[in-house]
Amino acid sequence: MPADYTRTVFFISDGTGITAETLGHSLLTQFEDLHFRQIRIPFVSTLAQALECQQQISRATATDGIRPIVVSTLVDANIGKVLRETDALFLDFFEAFIVPLENELGSKSSHTIGRSHGQPLSQDYTNRIDAVNFTLAHDDGASDIGLDKADVILIGVSRCGKTPTSLYLALQFGVRAANYPLIPEDFERSRLPGAIERHRDKLFGLTIGPERLHKVRTERRPDSRYASLENCRYEIEAAQKLMRREGVRWLDSTSKSIEEISTTIMQEVRLDRHVF
Amino acid sequence: MPADYTRTVFFISDGTGITAETLGHSLLTQFEDLHFRQIRIPFVSTLAQALECQQQISRATATDGIRPIVVSTLVDANIGKVLRETDALFLDFFEAFIVPLENELGSKSSHTIGRSHGQPLSQDYTNRIDAVNFTLAHDDGASDIGLDKADVILIGVSRCGKTPTSLYLALQFGVRAANYPLIPEDFERSRLPGAIERHRDKLFGLTIGPERLHKVRTERRPDSRYASLENCRYEIEAAQKLMRREGVRWLDSTSKSIEEISTTIMQEVRLDRHVF
Repeated sequence: MPADYTRTVFFISDGTGITAETLGHSLLTQFEDLHFRQIRIPFVSTLAQALECQQQISRATATDGIRPIVVSTLVDANIGKVLRETDALFLDFFEAFIVPLENELGSKSSHTIGRSHGQPLSQDYTNRIDAVNFTLAHDDGASDIGLDKADVILIGVSRCGKTPTSLYLALQFGVRAANYPLIPEDFERSRLPGAIERHRDKLFGLTIGPERLHKVRTERRPDSRYASLENCRYEIEAAQKLMRREGVRWLDSTSKSIEEISTTIMQEVRLDRHVF
Repeated sequence: MPADYTRTVFFISDGTGITAETLGHSLLTQFEDLHFRQIRIPFVSTLAQALECQQQISRATATDGIRPIVVSTLVDANIGKVLRETDALFLDFFEAFIVPLENELGSKSSHTIGRSHGQPLSQDYTNRIDAVNFTLAHDDGASDIGLDKADVILIGVSRCGKTPTSLYLALQFGVRAANYPLIPEDFERSRLPGAIERHRDKLFGLTIGPERLHKVRTERRPDSRYASLENCRYEIEAAQKLMRREGVRWLDSTSKSIEEISTTIMQEVRLDRHVF
């Protein structure tokens, strides 16, 4: 088998397929030398749709010259049975875990489709939407009002990753994450911005490598003083000095994914997860 | 065993634990009558941390009077071995699936920790951040400039769920999702807003039940005409009439999670996933 062949991987679910995809993607990243074509098929809940999946699986076998891999989360065992009439490696995560879990809990699973995600009208769901609205209203220091309601206030120089991290914290964890920029004026005054000084216990800093920041800023404002490596070095150093003196915890976002940064913040700030 | 007992569930990972939590949560929602206390322990990568987990597991057994459930994604088998010295039901995703996958692929997994999420400095990561920035810049009709670069433009009345959905599409899928409000002026003119009219092929509508919209708007502006059930009914009906006449696809967000809405949009608009 040539090393550069492509293998098709289907994520098939009777729900959104996000769980199957998350799991499948975790597994596939363990085989970094191989090349996968990844196809998500959500909302497969009827026999007709299962038959359509069968055909897609067969077509992939014909195209690739090798059977595909199917990562699935199918609550309805009958759908799974139909799919298995085609040739593929099936990794079904309900099948693998629901029976041991039923035995352990002494309870039958409800086999309800589409319950993985926060249900609308629930308190969790409302919290999550409220967190997103809060985060948007408090992005980049947009408003000082209501900062006392924040679960965490991220601080750092412009373009160090505050906004995507705040939004991820809000959407994924239902955390009210404000963010506030540290700007040259703050460094000259050698003080935290007045609006956040009194919320010191909620502050968490993000820092970033100067070369990386230079690259990110250059994409936005090429050849500006703002984006110059020299200025990036100055701002980062000044921000770290300020945070150190003010006793603000921080982490370096340079080589971390949004998920890693967010999880670390949750852990450091000991935020309870608001959403399940 | 009393029906109202609490069972502790740990999500333990050498990475962020988000995969373990996503999967674990999918499983637990199948047992809706039971009560679980859910604890995420991320970044468990040393023997000392594994021993600390052991103790937490034992303490949970003592508190609950019954052994806990451990849902894990541990790339390092040695950490798993240490954990298993305590009494719990262990559901490890890597263990269950990595060996069949290795056999199928004829390749050993790399056992690299923390590769599940988009790595910084990668093209995927950059796309995702760009999508978030695009979405923020085009939230609620904030800018007409660059709408031709949108992958999708969500439209609908105020507070029907456009903003959280757009942000989820950007963060989860790297999709450039703009959103544009439909307002009473549009209904009076019986036309789509001028800025989006020429992007008709990218439009996707969200609608919502009037009672639900009334509730959401009342939380923001109690006793206003804007929030009144009568006005909500009028706006929703007018928006649907407009979308129907203009040939814009839409879905009803009332009873759907953000994940379900987003996945449906991806499917309907046939957006390729930009992030993996």
